[in-house]
Amino acid sequence: MNLHGHHQIAGTPTASGTLTFDAVDPRLGEVLGPPFAEGGAAEVDAALAAAATAFTAYRRTPGHDRATFLRRIADEIEALGDQLIERTRRETALPEARLLGERGRTTAQLRLFADLLDEGSWLGARIDRGDPQRKPQPKPDLRRTLVPLGPVVVFGASNFPYAFSTAGGDTASALAAGCPVVVKGHPAHPGTGELVARAIATAAAATGMPAGVFSHLQGTSHELGRALVTHRLTAAFGFTGSLRAGRALFDAAATRSQPIPAYAEMGSVNPVFVLPGAARERAEAIAHGLVASATLGAGQFCTNPGLVFTLAGADTDRLLAAAATAVAEVPPSTMLYRGICERFTEGAGGVEATAGVRLVGRAATSADPARGEGAPVVFATDDATFRASPALAEELFGPSTLIVTASSAEALLSLARDLDGQLTATLHATPDDLADHAELVRVLEGIAGRLILNGFPTGVEVGHAMQHGGPYPATTDARSTSVGTAAIERFVRPVCYQDFPDDVLPPELQDGNPLGIWRMVDGRLTRERLRR
Amino acid sequence: MNLHGHHQIAGTPTASGTLTFDAVDPRLGEVLGPPFAEGGAAEVDAALAAAATAFTAYRRTPGHDRATFLRRIADEIEALGDQLIERTRRETALPEARLLGERGRTTAQLRLFADLLDEGSWLGARIDRGDPQRKPQPKPDLRRTLVPLGPVVVFGASNFPYAFSTAGGDTASALAAGCPVVVKGHPAHPGTGELVARAIATAAAATGMPAGVFSHLQGTSHELGRALVTHRLTAAFGFTGSLRAGRALFDAAATRSQPIPAYAEMGSVNPVFVLPGAARERAEAIAHGLVASATLGAGQFCTNPGLVFTLAGADTDRLLAAAATAVAEVPPSTMLYRGICERFTEGAGGVEATAGVRLVGRAATSADPARGEGAPVVFATDDATFRASPALAEELFGPSTLIVTASSAEALLSLARDLDGQLTATLHATPDDLADHAELVRVLEGIAGRLILNGFPTGVEVGHAMQHGGPYPATTDARSTSVGTAAIERFVRPVCYQDFPDDVLPPELQDGNPLGIWRMVDGRLTRERLRR
Repeated sequence: MNLHGHHQIAGTPTASGTLTFDAVDPRLGEVLGPPFAEGGAAEVDAALAAAATAFTAYRRTPGHDRATFLRRIADEIEALGDQLIERTRRETALPEARLLGERGRTTAQLRLFADLLDEGSWLGARIDRGDPQRKPQPKPDLRRTLVPLGPVVVFGASNFPYAFSTAGGDTASALAAGCPVVVKGHPAHPGTGELVARAIATAAAATGMPAGVFSHLQGTSHELGRALVTHRLTAAFGFTGSLRAGRALFDAAATRSQPIPAYAEMGSVNPVFVLPGAARERAEAIAHGLVASATLGAGQFCTNPGLVFTLAGADTDRLLAAAATAVAEVPPSTMLYRGICERFTEGAGGVEATAGVRLVGRAATSADPARGEGAPVVFATDDATFRASPALAEELFGPSTLIVTASSAEALLSLARDLDGQLTATLHATPDDLADHAELVRVLEGIAGRLILNGFPTGVEVGHAMQHGGPYPATTDARSTSVGTAAIERFVRPVCYQDFPDDVLPPELQDGNPLGIWRMVDGRLTRERLRR
Repeated sequence: MNLHGHHQIAGTPTASGTLTFDAVDPRLGEVLGPPFAEGGAAEVDAALAAAATAFTAYRRTPGHDRATFLRRIADEIEALGDQLIERTRRETALPEARLLGERGRTTAQLRLFADLLDEGSWLGARIDRGDPQRKPQPKPDLRRTLVPLGPVVVFGASNFPYAFSTAGGDTASALAAGCPVVVKGHPAHPGTGELVARAIATAAAATGMPAGVFSHLQGTSHELGRALVTHRLTAAFGFTGSLRAGRALFDAAATRSQPIPAYAEMGSVNPVFVLPGAARERAEAIAHGLVASATLGAGQFCTNPGLVFTLAGADTDRLLAAAATAVAEVPPSTMLYRGICERFTEGAGGVEATAGVRLVGRAATSADPARGEGAPVVFATDDATFRASPALAEELFGPSTLIVTASSAEALLSLARDLDGQLTATLHATPDDLADHAELVRVLEGIAGRLILNGFPTGVEVGHAMQHGGPYPATTDARSTSVGTAAIERFVRPVCYQDFPDDVLPPELQDGNPLGIWRMVDGRLTRERLRR
């Protein structure tokens, strides 16, 4: 398949303007053709108008049909075969094994949402039966289900070219919910985006979905993002990326005459607390795991453990020594694109130059700036320095971590209390540690979306119980998750039907429970059929 | 009990400033003592600091203990007896029977949330069991529950002095969720607010809750509301009132450095569609029901049916004639306060003065401006006039309705398509009408939170299946409801525990399921205990 470099609007390759941008191989710095069209207001209008038109049909599509569509998308992505992997490898410098794994995660995610639709209970149907004899007023029959919001705008993320991009979690959950999707692909992997967008368009056509159910826009400008989230037909948006970009989109959306749900996932420093018993028992193992997690995928994960808190002492010294050894052995690798690498290198330099911060260790092999490599590095400091230098608490996107040694358990707790909202918080602790630091666990529950015990935050399982989303600035809406089946709840709203006859109700609310789903009837969960 | 006229902050009557405002009897225009303290920044700080302190303990309170607290609040409100009813009657001009009914609804609502907490399944616990043998990575054990957001600010509404005020639905659902509450009472019924606030404080003390779990501020200024929603410790707010006031609070909250959930319920015109078969069969009955619903409680409900759409013709002429007869018989009644009455009278005058609008009928008894009475009135117009005069589509808060006659079924559908978001939409229809106007039902699903068949929108049942909330401008967040047990979901966020031992997990996630609740285990709903 030859890349055309166009947007994909309602099934059709489209490019109205003359501006283009290039895909660049971050290892070699060389341009990867073709030139890609730069989207603007005309494309935004066209894609959202098509999405709104498609919505009138798509929102009524039975869940089983949407499941068929999602599974077909997975099939079509797999059918892209080596071409997709190879293109993404060149655009992102991510290794093939990682890309194969991420593709598997992406197709599994699409199929998981398909299974959710087939099972059907996600609709959370509630039925309060009426009582015409009730005094002083008859009690009405009330039946509540969920309906999709409308066209959803999704922003592709640079660091997950499949799983958080064109056919990623936001797209899968919005399509599952019954919402058409307009993706703004990340400009660091436009060829990947085009291939996946074409796979989705093929799947839509093959399964009889309206063409406007999916569009994919290419572009690099802030104006494009702003136009998408402020467009009157946009009903919600999902974003994964930096705090600065996410907040800008959130603020733009806040100026709308009609407010919309804004789901921006903006990263985290993902604090790790190493408690004394755990440090005593396994300082070296923790250090190795920590360095592996912090440098995995060149540290380019929103769950990268950027801050580690420990108590000063001999066991922490062992941990630091082991971390120095471990990080020396990590080979530098090319980061996703030059801008990310430059920001990381500059940021790491800033940390190293901070008075009171010391270098624990760095990759023994020098990073090659010509190949866009970031050098894996571990820093350490004490709690006083950390408190005096607020920049140290900010996310540094890349293969680094900062170990903060606290002078006392009280100081450790106090550091936890002052943390911003986080996607994750991790504890390394023995049972005795947990008993001794019970308050710390409670504090971390108050700031994070996911708490991990004796593990590391990278590796976000896609399932029913996952929560990927925490208090601001980790996300703009901690009430929801962007990973796992509960993500479908972000793109729906409840509707209640009062005194409607069975044949006008959607199937999930009909007496006979034709979908066979779990429903709350008069406050009780049941799969039974009802008799009026 | 003598009224003190102070704020009630963390259990203590407090008044720092010297500014006061008066409660006024809207029937007589006379001041009802005592003077009430005008709240400002000092009170906002004190109440939210107390709430934040209380939160550290209150968020960990077992559900059963919160249930005891909620039931005690209901008991204490009932124990206020006639003094409460009499004070509210004087402050609001609402008749005693209505107030007794509303008090019953309010205490029933508190007890319903208590029952929800005792049952416990509302937590939506999800468990994905781990698999240490999985390749290439072991699968972690993930367990997800809901935790409260933090201090919630609630704005009392003028039109429901109990059910949407100091101990109303927002307060009940936030307290049930585990969030402390700071209420800004509505200044039209400050004595009512004080009495209820003192009942809540008594209940908190009697059930061992931290004092800061509830505070009640008095005041009339916009600055007070703004200070509450922008305070750094505020975690969410709930509001019921006008579009202008709700949007101002929403916009103020949008300027925060940390975004918060903003639940403003801002009313609706609650369109009613009378389809031809229904008009033919029962034009008179519909007209009588419509007039009763539109004038109930002096039309001061957010579900007041303000717009009626019909097809021009003989049956609609019958409906109009019957509406004229019905509205003539409705006695004018005193509205909640002078400002509301003046806005209604002015607004109704504006409708009447619109070229192409005709007066169908008005209360035979003249409204007495000296007693703050609004005159029940029914207007009619055609679809061309309605389209040409956008002001006619805006909510007019009071005892009036406007009947719009459309020239064709297509015109009716087109009018529906152009409606703003609504709390409710109502259809009067025969089975044949529903078949003939299937598209209209679909359109109304897209704009409203609740659809009513052959009934009227006033009367919002408190239960599990109620949805009170629709697309903007009905509310700022259509994903949630402000009435019914699902309202508890507004004040919580998910937290996931990865690989935690049983004794550190909250009870709802423990293997043994000590709460006996429904949980989703590996994607399947069950109440079973687990074995690891």
